[in-house]
Amino acid sequence: MLEIEAIGFIAGFLTTASYVPEVIRVARTKDTQGISLTWLIALLVGVVLWLLYGVYIGSYPVVIANAITALLVSTMLALKLKYT
Amino acid sequence: MLEIEAIGFIAGFLTTASYVPEVIRVARTKDTQGISLTWLIALLVGVVLWLLYGVYIGSYPVVIANAITALLVSTMLALKLKYT
Repeated sequence: MLEIEAIGFIAGFLTTASYVPEVIRVARTKDTQGISLTWLIALLVGVVLWLLYGVYIGSYPVVIANAITALLVSTMLALKLKYT
Repeated sequence: MLEIEAIGFIAGFLTTASYVPEVIRVARTKDTQGISLTWLIALLVGVVLWLLYGVYIGSYPVVIANAITALLVSTMLALKLKYT
């Protein structure tokens, strides 16, 4: 069971980390033109639903990865609303 | 339990669908300059590990969402390798 959770945490680290370069790029350049507001909102809803799903099934990797991803996507959404 | 799976499937639909616009953009424009090869490989490894994790914990939403996402990311990787 411990190995399975480890696989989940490594998976979560990689997919969550994949959002970091775009958040940094947007924060630095203030260029949000290429990011659609609809896309950001749909993604945020999806990530929050994954978080809820993770709570229901009792999966720490799903909960933690999606909680951090939700913060990253929320940051992008805030930057999009600020710089549009 | 059925409602929980439904939340997982809606979550998976939204987060998986979030990769579609970028795949279409790259396929149309053949412009892969903004996409890092390291990023694509890390993301693909992450998604495949989620898929494995989903199989281990017996979660259909995690398995199906990540199987489709793996196909989308593999397509981007193939386009990146083709057009670089």
